Amino acid sequence: MSNFTLHGIVPPVLTPLTKDYQVDEKSLRKVVRHLIDGGVHGLFLLGSTSECVFLNAKQRAQVISIALEEAAGKVPSVCGTMDPTTDRVIENARQAKALGVDGLVVTSQFYTRSSQNETIDHFSMIQDAVNLPILAYDIPVCTNLKLSRETIREMYDRKLICAVKDSSGDIENMRMLGLDFVNEPDFSILSGSETVVDYALLGGAHGNVPGLGNVDPAGYVRLYNAAKAGDWAAARQEQERLIRLFQIVFQGVPHTSPNASGVGGFKTAMQLMGLIEHRHMSRPNRVLPDAAVAKVKEILIAAGLL
Amino acid sequence: MSNFTLHGIVPPVLTPLTKDYQVDEKSLRKVVRHLIDGGVHGLFLLGSTSECVFLNAKQRAQVISIALEEAAGKVPSVCGTMDPTTDRVIENARQAKALGVDGLVVTSQFYTRSSQNETIDHFSMIQDAVNLPILAYDIPVCTNLKLSRETIREMYDRKLICAVKDSSGDIENMRMLGLDFVNEPDFSILSGSETVVDYALLGGAHGNVPGLGNVDPAGYVRLYNAAKAGDWAAARQEQERLIRLFQIVFQGVPHTSPNASGVGGFKTAMQLMGLIEHRHMSRPNRVLPDAAVAKVKEILIAAGLL
Amino acid sequence: MSNFTLHGIVPPVLTPLTKDYQVDEKSLRKVVRHLIDGGVHGLFLLGSTSECVFLNAKQRAQVISIALEEAAGKVPSVCGTMDPTTDRVIENARQAKALGVDGLVVTSQFYTRSSQNETIDHFSMIQDAVNLPILAYDIPVCTNLKLSRETIREMYDRKLICAVKDSSGDIENMRMLGLDFVNEPDFSILSGSETVVDYALLGGAHGNVPGLGNVDPAGYVRLYNAAKAGDWAAARQEQERLIRLFQIVFQGVPHTSPNASGVGGFKTAMQLMGLIEHRHMSRPNRVLPDAAVAKVKEILIAAGLL
Amino acid sequence: MSNFTLHGIVPPVLTPLTKDYQVDEKSLRKVVRHLIDGGVHGLFLLGSTSECVFLNAKQRAQVISIALEEAAGKVPSVCGTMDPTTDRVIENARQAKALGVDGLVVTSQFYTRSSQNETIDHFSMIQDAVNLPILAYDIPVCTNLKLSRETIREMYDRKLICAVKDSSGDIENMRMLGLDFVNEPDFSILSGSETVVDYALLGGAHGNVPGLGNVDPAGYVRLYNAAKAGDWAAARQEQERLIRLFQIVFQGVPHTSPNASGVGGFKTAMQLMGLIEHRHMSRPNRVLPDAAVAKVKEILIAAGLL
Repeated sequence: MSNFTLHGIVPPVLTPLTKDYQVDEKSLRKVVRHLIDGGVHGLFLLGSTSECVFLNAKQRAQVISIALEEAAGKVPSVCGTMDPTTDRVIENARQAKALGVDGLVVTSQFYTRSSQNETIDHFSMIQDAVNLPILAYDIPVCTNLKLSRETIREMYDRKLICAVKDSSGDIENMRMLGLDFVNEPDFSILSGSETVVDYALLGGAHGNVPGLGNVDPAGYVRLYNAAKAGDWAAARQEQERLIRLFQIVFQGVPHTSPNASGVGGFKTAMQLMGLIEHRHMSRPNRVLPDAAVAKVKEILIAAGLL
Repeated sequence: MSNFTLHGIVPPVLTPLTKDYQVDEKSLRKVVRHLIDGGVHGLFLLGSTSECVFLNAKQRAQVISIALEEAAGKVPSVCGTMDPTTDRVIENARQAKALGVDGLVVTSQFYTRSSQNETIDHFSMIQDAVNLPILAYDIPVCTNLKLSRETIREMYDRKLICAVKDSSGDIENMRMLGLDFVNEPDFSILSGSETVVDYALLGGAHGNVPGLGNVDPAGYVRLYNAAKAGDWAAARQEQERLIRLFQIVFQGVPHTSPNASGVGGFKTAMQLMGLIEHRHMSRPNRVLPDAAVAKVKEILIAAGLL
Repeated sequence: MSNFTLHGIVPPVLTPLTKDYQVDEKSLRKVVRHLIDGGVHGLFLLGSTSECVFLNAKQRAQVISIALEEAAGKVPSVCGTMDPTTDRVIENARQAKALGVDGLVVTSQFYTRSSQNETIDHFSMIQDAVNLPILAYDIPVCTNLKLSRETIREMYDRKLICAVKDSSGDIENMRMLGLDFVNEPDFSILSGSETVVDYALLGGAHGNVPGLGNVDPAGYVRLYNAAKAGDWAAARQEQERLIRLFQIVFQGVPHTSPNASGVGGFKTAMQLMGLIEHRHMSRPNRVLPDAAVAKVKEILIAAGLL
Repeated sequence: MSNFTLHGIVPPVLTPLTKDYQVDEKSLRKVVRHLIDGGVHGLFLLGSTSECVFLNAKQRAQVISIALEEAAGKVPSVCGTMDPTTDRVIENARQAKALGVDGLVVTSQFYTRSSQNETIDHFSMIQDAVNLPILAYDIPVCTNLKLSRETIREMYDRKLICAVKDSSGDIENMRMLGLDFVNEPDFSILSGSETVVDYALLGGAHGNVPGLGNVDPAGYVRLYNAAKAGDWAAARQEQERLIRLFQIVFQGVPHTSPNASGVGGFKTAMQLMGLIEHRHMSRPNRVLPDAAVAKVKEILIAAGLL
């Protein structure tokens, strides 16, 4: 593995779509520029917020190619490989490597019910196949398996992974993990939260992967910089502004899934801000209705973004 | 939708693999013959037991082509389309239809967190795209969404589905569902259980999809026939023999997932019975160790299968 | 332990309350007579349906005394002892024994998070303290612990329990448990379901504890007798009538808990049938509103009970 | 309600027991002095760590009387009232009020499955009955109900509660709750965590209820004071020392519940430190074995407490 280390604000790059549900190249380029102009430290292509699992191999390749070309090496990139099982992840990983990403993001298996041991085998086979830095993505709400402290330790010791992105919501465990790795400067811990980034940084996390960072990258960068400077009052103030902004994800009508409500909120905001042309999500998710759009607009104005 | 109706024993056809994890054509043909010779009423290709989500599009096409050729139309076939999201399921569904399956098996979305309403949209888009009979596969342990009675009703009323396979383990709900559809002879309810098939049939279920039916199709057919004849004592006796046989799925070493232990038990049994050449599962799952093989052998002998 | 064995229909006796939430003696006597006249094989006092955990020691004593006096030894009785922890259960158990019940019903601990091993210790200490037949009550939805097959086996082997009441909903596990005990005629398995009693009896269960049996004891007795006679068509028909009747538990307004909706449905039905004076439940549960009462009435008429 | 407000370090006072499982008065007095000498801002009697649900009414009264007498009004006290249902909680609450506690701690109902609305009714009836400041205790792992932001808001607006203790582990929700109440200086939010106290304080929480505070109250007070002074580096350093100390809760042998392992770790540490005579827990929990005691000793030495 290269000595690539992840830190700072690394947003999961939203994937803008056309009205017929294809990758919207022009909007995607605009999003990438918006993020880099906002000062982010890296790009996480094809994350959950990017609607990764909705895209087929060809669409995923498009996203990677366009984003990397637009980023032009200004910041490092990692790329999600999400699919249910090992060899299918390897196919995704090989494509992403061939297209030039700097690192990969890998979850445990899903749909199939897996174990900690099988997860270690899974990562081992993927690392063997691609030989690229791997960030373990701990998202049990999607995979039904929480990566244990022991599993993460063993994968690091066997040089299978160089970082973890913790989207488990279990911040107590993440903090104990941080102490487990306090003597390993080449291991990064990134929080997947939008709302407690200052907490994670206070506890020693190396960075953050905020979906909301698509809407307000500069805000998250300010928060990160304040924390790095030890100005926790400023960090907290910025975080609280971002929490208020984050309420855009709760505007879905009843019977909308958290996924459609959340990505729907982000896309609606970015459309209102002129960053993407359409707010369509991959099928079957429906665009937020007008009342929700009005609510999102209100929140954007309050946050100083419109 | 055609007037295709599902009933009887419809096992999820196990997918034999070579030592390098490719579809083992010769063994697959043998499995299909074994099932048809055992008297099954239909074949469910690419189910969970078939390791569907481990296979890529090409491998799935191989399985379908080989199995359909070997089956030669003697029994109807349905085919799993499992992938996380709508348009990816449609790709699988189109391929399966083109290869000649009689119906499709569709789950709710997974990895992404979906809602009942979005699930109805999901099935609607798939039905629009392929126009083939669809069996809704209710397997919340894999998808994290239980199809509600209301959702199933609405999908039937809108002619999106013609059957449900209930692998939720919630037999009380399945029974109430049966009464909901007591006046709809064109709707089938299939149980996904191996161990309470007689119960489901007593309650009016139309058939069963037993993974263990790969090992002992004739046993499940006898059970079904006894139940159809109203000979519940005979049905129970056969069921109890099959429950004892089912203990082959619990022989995985500690730290083995239920999936690897279960499919591992089936493949081990079928190798011992000379039905498949290797007992390899898709990566990363490991073959059962020798002690487990010995245990499986013992159980097969006790069940009269060796 | 005495050679007391449980079988047949053993309803959890509903606890009628006055308008000021005290035990309504007159109505309770009527309920007990209604059950015995309906042919039940035993009485389960102070079960979940009886609102056991809502009652203090004095109220529990009242219920036991009144019910036992009214039953006058015509059928055996068991009595719930539900409280969070071991020594508090022992207090309840001693009181129940002193008042003359024939056996006790004991759950694993709750509120505190317990383990299988600690559960075995829990039952052991209770059995040591009271020396009375104990029925293990497996209700993980309330206790957060599912009694494993191994735990039940060990408790039987150590003579701590003589029966299990399975309200876990896991009918597949209950059936495997039945086969585990096929050679132990002194161990009883009772199903806690209202809607799949015929299934459980077909699989060899010894009896059933239906909350709905308060409303229609004669129906459950007919179902049991048909099953014992091997007339599964009649059993099924009776069961299906009872499933339709069971829909009274789903009439709670939105935001009503399953408990308040279920017991509320039973009490409403029994009030309409003239069996209890008030339909009040223990605080804070609210009586079903008028629209729900009308729905319950309709269902009772359809079931031939009004 | 009085204008009592909760803040600072308010440990759940551990309940020392004699070898025959009775309240150990001498040790309890020592624990109370240890806490007050350590500088805590309040005492939480009869919390989960205090083994509240294991104690009967008489034992609870003893704990309250002894602790209040020993505390002699130096710090305010709140008292847990945990029991499954409303009127039983009211009995506990009345006793606690009569004995002189300053406020009450109330959870939602448990064992019975309750709803948000019924929980509001529950708190309303308790507040009506006792008229004392109430802290809502949000501990879904024990009660199976997470108090929603809306429920907490409504209970505050109706003057039913004056504080919440959040032991749900959902720190993101707790933070949004904090912003919901940013203009209500008479509402307190206390974190139930041992390991992310600095985070909660950074986000504006008013205090903390650490079980581990029994072992090292002065450490938690230092952490609180550093945070109040805005010295987040010092707060973090103290927190990290306490996280290392917290590993005493993970020394239970396999098959030990989290409860027995956690309280067992605290009691073992306090016995080693000479603060309590025995390390017995309420039945059926077993004392930690010798190997675990040795491990706890090691951790105490490393933390500078032995």
